[in-house]
Amino acid sequence: MQGFQERDRSVFDGASLPLMVVHREALEHNIATMAAFARDHGMELAPHAKTHMSGEIATMQLEAGAWALTVATPRQAMAAREFGAARVMVANQVVDPVGLEWAAAELAADPGFDFLSFVDSVAGVDILARHASSRPFSVLVELGHEGGRAGCRTLEQLLEVAAHVQRTDGVELAGIAGYEGALKTAPEVRKYLYQLQEAVEHLRVKNPILTVGGSQWFDVIGRELVTTQARVVLRAGAYVTHDDGYYRERTPFNRVPGELWPALEVWAYVLSTPEPGLAIVGMGKRDAPYDEGLPVPRRGGVTIVKMQDQHTVVRADGLKPGDLLAFGISHPCTAFDKWRTLPLVDRDYRRVGTINTRFG
Amino acid sequence: MQGFQERDRSVFDGASLPLMVVHREALEHNIATMAAFARDHGMELAPHAKTHMSGEIATMQLEAGAWALTVATPRQAMAAREFGAARVMVANQVVDPVGLEWAAAELAADPGFDFLSFVDSVAGVDILARHASSRPFSVLVELGHEGGRAGCRTLEQLLEVAAHVQRTDGVELAGIAGYEGALKTAPEVRKYLYQLQEAVEHLRVKNPILTVGGSQWFDVIGRELVTTQARVVLRAGAYVTHDDGYYRERTPFNRVPGELWPALEVWAYVLSTPEPGLAIVGMGKRDAPYDEGLPVPRRGGVTIVKMQDQHTVVRADGLKPGDLLAFGISHPCTAFDKWRTLPLVDRDYRRVGTINTRFG
Repeated sequence: MQGFQERDRSVFDGASLPLMVVHREALEHNIATMAAFARDHGMELAPHAKTHMSGEIATMQLEAGAWALTVATPRQAMAAREFGAARVMVANQVVDPVGLEWAAAELAADPGFDFLSFVDSVAGVDILARHASSRPFSVLVELGHEGGRAGCRTLEQLLEVAAHVQRTDGVELAGIAGYEGALKTAPEVRKYLYQLQEAVEHLRVKNPILTVGGSQWFDVIGRELVTTQARVVLRAGAYVTHDDGYYRERTPFNRVPGELWPALEVWAYVLSTPEPGLAIVGMGKRDAPYDEGLPVPRRGGVTIVKMQDQHTVVRADGLKPGDLLAFGISHPCTAFDKWRTLPLVDRDYRRVGTINTRFG
Repeated sequence: MQGFQERDRSVFDGASLPLMVVHREALEHNIATMAAFARDHGMELAPHAKTHMSGEIATMQLEAGAWALTVATPRQAMAAREFGAARVMVANQVVDPVGLEWAAAELAADPGFDFLSFVDSVAGVDILARHASSRPFSVLVELGHEGGRAGCRTLEQLLEVAAHVQRTDGVELAGIAGYEGALKTAPEVRKYLYQLQEAVEHLRVKNPILTVGGSQWFDVIGRELVTTQARVVLRAGAYVTHDDGYYRERTPFNRVPGELWPALEVWAYVLSTPEPGLAIVGMGKRDAPYDEGLPVPRRGGVTIVKMQDQHTVVRADGLKPGDLLAFGISHPCTAFDKWRTLPLVDRDYRRVGTINTRFG
């Protein structure tokens, strides 16, 4: 993404702005980089498809060797299946009868389909078991941590849930799941990973899976989980397009060799310059993420004052109505969900494809 | 929306959660209420369709007598036209060549089509003029205010832009536009409305339009602009579904007779209860707005701790995995854009239709 030129914009011929574009080169680079990182560290990659919910990107991830697609909801699992994933992992306890009936029917209909989900309670196991068909639901018992999200809070609780799985028809124990993305420091992550390994070692399961999440700590995961006997499955999502904000600051590639490239960019016009040094840009909360950092202007000297539904107020000198501005984004997971189709562009902003998304 | 029962949920048979539903009764009530308010105060209503971007809702608003549909972008204007609006007002200076070429072609092709947009600079007027076809672009000169968004900052600047419109081919002067939604107090709004009236009186235009925005000050607008000679056009958007947060606190119906009813509600399952008093709900930033207040739990004793991409962490006693929770929302304008289709439901949560949206 070097050599960026605001005048190179053939993609916009015929397209009304604002517009978010996906840079093919960065997308391909990131997918190859993470696939190689996982391979080099003896891990499997199950990219979290909730980030993009795009069949085109899922296909690229599967072709790069992804072990599964990870999703957050049953509705996303249905889409991931349509994207062509033979193995889908829902990184949650699934309690939705509609989702479970769908999964049960898919498992019964296709012996090649694998469906994994998390459990962290006897109640959750029983809900799954009630919806099982001829093939049991494969489950990963989730170990959480205080201040975290879901997941058993102690090894004792986890082993109780695991034992309940093993004595219940309709479910089978596949391993352990964790999520380290809410932890703030490497020592905290190491301690938590140690607890996950300890949990795996207590399971009486052949070839257990140990899955961890996130795009923020895969360096620590790659180092710490190398000796485990489990199949380690990384559920990173945001890596696929990276960003110019939140993940630029937090990527493990700030600590270990390698890099990801920001693949998303929003283009918009200056609509009005009502005061000297003030410009109103035609890009708003409908077009770019704003929850984990605001968009990042590509042009120097441009500072965002605030974002509104359809506008961004910026401080900058020398702008006039009709000027084009480009912005990097912060937080890919709330970028894709604002667009149904995005142009895939080459280095010269020529359109080389379309990314379709499946949200809502 | 009284008598709400979390067990009355026939709409969910066959639907995977989370799900946002639209209450028909509230929607119809709000559309009728604002149409009557405008009529009773001698104003026209040009509902801001950016809130919902739904053909079904636009049709209801047009059938209730809307004078026009208001939109924020050329892409939204194209959609509004497809929704059946004979008059479309873009509440911005339009600089996008693609959008202007489209509007020029529509104007040339259909003598029954009216297209209005705002200007606040000579540069903006010239961009419009360059794209005009056989019929000129009708423009409203925008008067802003310090600390506001776009719009001329003084009457002098505004009259210069108006004069430029009147001596330029391809554009014609239709009136004055303002936006009072960023003002914080009734005296500020009254002062600004006075400036808008003053601007209208200075225009040499027959039957001028004076358009103002927003769902927060229409009571003051209704009182203050009653004597103006201009056709007053209100661009309220959020009123159509109202909410349980931002607009519940700010609606003018807290000050004058009348009321709006919240029409949007998100339903989700409790996925996990990992600690006593803590629950993880399967509703996140993908499903409900979070920018102007968080969702509002319908059940007493439930407090939102935080929202994540796909989860909401709540404090509540007595919940278990699989429990259903309903939430009102805050800020309709960032609610609809998360969904492509929403069930329209009756008072008993029976599905009576579908609301389709057009974003991204």
